[in-house]
Amino acid sequence: MRKVYFAGSIRGGRQDAALYGDMIAFLEERGCLVLTEHVGLESLQTEGERTMTEEEIFQRDMAWLTESDLVVAECTTPSHGVGYELARARDMGKTVHIFYDLGRGRLSAMLAGDDRFILHPYLSKEEVFKALDHIMSES
Amino acid sequence: MRKVYFAGSIRGGRQDAALYGDMIAFLEERGCLVLTEHVGLESLQTEGERTMTEEEIFQRDMAWLTESDLVVAECTTPSHGVGYELARARDMGKTVHIFYDLGRGRLSAMLAGDDRFILHPYLSKEEVFKALDHIMSES
Repeated sequence: MRKVYFAGSIRGGRQDAALYGDMIAFLEERGCLVLTEHVGLESLQTEGERTMTEEEIFQRDMAWLTESDLVVAECTTPSHGVGYELARARDMGKTVHIFYDLGRGRLSAMLAGDDRFILHPYLSKEEVFKALDHIMSES
Repeated sequence: MRKVYFAGSIRGGRQDAALYGDMIAFLEERGCLVLTEHVGLESLQTEGERTMTEEEIFQRDMAWLTESDLVVAECTTPSHGVGYELARARDMGKTVHIFYDLGRGRLSAMLAGDDRFILHPYLSKEEVFKALDHIMSES
């Protein structure tokens, strides 16, 4: 079973939480194990997880990132954590797919300019799922 | 002359640009060369630098990060680029100081939980400059 690390904003803002949830559900329907499934829960608010310390969250997420076969990130809402995770993932040699809504601001030059990332700009949700479908069928 | 890489949000939002400028000016007054001085310019808006390609900005910033002696980041406004830069900096073994306003949301667990970072939570600008003064006098 393919293990996916899905990265999306938590403390940076939850305005795209429903989209994260839909992307995660799509990956799961395609037989992936999404290690960070909680990122798509609309019940998870910007205060983040309250039952773990910062160090515990960090250690768990880094273990999941290390264990993952593939990283999928939704980068429309700015997030320090997601930027951090993507840099660590590329330094681990992971394949990283970055999605962002072209109609809502510009992607960071640190992500757009790093040729180790695979970029998926989109203008509609249909394009997101079409690209995810393509990723799932080719890899 | 000590070379500082100052990291602050550009495309993630410019609401703290004036603070970035004041922090950069403080470091320069203390004799540092701030490689990323443009981050503090209020004329620089969220569209970022328009005269360079994404790849050129990325390559320049990574060269500056590699060259720097010290990294100082203001992390109140969420930013993919800043999160990316801090992860790359820690993987390069740089000393990284992270400032954030305790009164405006929570710092990402990826930054708060990584013990390689030195955190400077603050509640007033006075605390920011006091901490910068301490960093300058000790290192």
